[in-house]
Amino acid sequence: MRTVLVIGIGAGDPDHLTLQAVAALRRADVFFAIDKGSAKDDLLALRTLLLDRHVGPGAYRVVEAADPERDRDATGPGYREAVLDWQDRRAAVYAGMIDDELGPDGVGAFLVWGDPALYDGTLRLLAGIHDADVASGGQGFTIESVPGISSVAALAAAHRLILNRVGGSVLVTTGRRLAAGMPRDVDDVVVMLDGSTAFAALPDDDVDIYWGAYLGTPDEILVAGNLQKVKDDIVRRRAAARERKGWIMDTYLLRRDPGRR
Amino acid sequence: MRTVLVIGIGAGDPDHLTLQAVAALRRADVFFAIDKGSAKDDLLALRTLLLDRHVGPGAYRVVEAADPERDRDATGPGYREAVLDWQDRRAAVYAGMIDDELGPDGVGAFLVWGDPALYDGTLRLLAGIHDADVASGGQGFTIESVPGISSVAALAAAHRLILNRVGGSVLVTTGRRLAAGMPRDVDDVVVMLDGSTAFAALPDDDVDIYWGAYLGTPDEILVAGNLQKVKDDIVRRRAAARERKGWIMDTYLLRRDPGRR
Repeated sequence: MRTVLVIGIGAGDPDHLTLQAVAALRRADVFFAIDKGSAKDDLLALRTLLLDRHVGPGAYRVVEAADPERDRDATGPGYREAVLDWQDRRAAVYAGMIDDELGPDGVGAFLVWGDPALYDGTLRLLAGIHDADVASGGQGFTIESVPGISSVAALAAAHRLILNRVGGSVLVTTGRRLAAGMPRDVDDVVVMLDGSTAFAALPDDDVDIYWGAYLGTPDEILVAGNLQKVKDDIVRRRAAARERKGWIMDTYLLRRDPGRR
Repeated sequence: MRTVLVIGIGAGDPDHLTLQAVAALRRADVFFAIDKGSAKDDLLALRTLLLDRHVGPGAYRVVEAADPERDRDATGPGYREAVLDWQDRRAAVYAGMIDDELGPDGVGAFLVWGDPALYDGTLRLLAGIHDADVASGGQGFTIESVPGISSVAALAAAHRLILNRVGGSVLVTTGRRLAAGMPRDVDDVVVMLDGSTAFAALPDDDVDIYWGAYLGTPDEILVAGNLQKVKDDIVRRRAAARERKGWIMDTYLLRRDPGRR
């Protein structure tokens, strides 16, 4: 039976890797990689560092494919469709790599940033490929998910935060959804995938923000404070960093009524 | 300057430990432990295994204190007060251990289940102790948080789940809050700290549950399916496991409209 491992490698610090992930790296016959465009050099450097360190230089094989084009301008109801369409084309790329590279008992691996369970589509794609393979008379493959340190956990550690208040809830959401305003029922909101700095448009006076970019890396930037007081600083530093590096990954916590435990 | 490390050790699997956490274990002069009552033997066994494996048998020092009594029957507005009161008394215990055991440049460590940022009060207590120490003329101490694999990530990995749908939000909440019903605005809800099986009282027909107990350990139990169809099975198995082991730690995802990507 073929096996495909989806290994969470953490939020950027090579030492976020778990012992379970190290063991998984050593089990893989081949690593599948997708060329991510502008972030390519940094991603490649981290992947090479992890594999050299834990598998050994020259002791592993990487197969790389180009990421399908994606319509990043879609808005409204078209946004979900654009993402799903792009994921379907990406699935075809993944299916091709698995078919071409994995022998009957082969073990392949995808390395994913952070945790495979949060805003990463790899597991969903693989489940679809497996199901389609079985439906067409194939054997499919076993999927194993190895949890990793998410950027949410890395953000909290960097700011020494507990995400929840006593007995309270935490919402993990996207910049796109935050654009509609702070949710009414939750006072602690973690925002991921915010390419448009949605926080800067919020009118709330009673909200603190804890922001971080390139978490766990030497380029890490942290800003915290009252949202209205620090938002311009974050927008400015974010734009400058993105210009300098060519890409950015950032996330933040919004905390309403920050004086309460 | 004194340093206190808060080290996330993951959800139960010793191999959830990150390389960063291993390095942190080796930095500590003393480990502070709180006797957790019924779960004591299992917690102690995991702690001993981790320290023997990564620091060395006989090469570390553990200082243990009893957990203050807690009013677990408080309900309504009294619940938060009871938790805060218990945390204040626990803070006094922690402060005493730090004062008694840490020299001027000493490094102490607390090992916490899962991730320090999710439903664990250690960081909050330490920040309060530090502030009180500084306010009374002391030097305080440096607090470092080391992220860990949360039970949320372990649950998702065990079920090979992505917690969010495309562009969607995820709410992390408590059993106490879930008792008021499934939230209206979020279709993916992770529930922690549910000692009263609040899921079993929900009337929803269009919700799947992904439940896990003792995640990452040899005792791991997983159940998934339509909430109405499997809830009785979960309640029964949960009660039997708790009876057998004397304690239980469990968590679950509720997913409304599960057919949607």
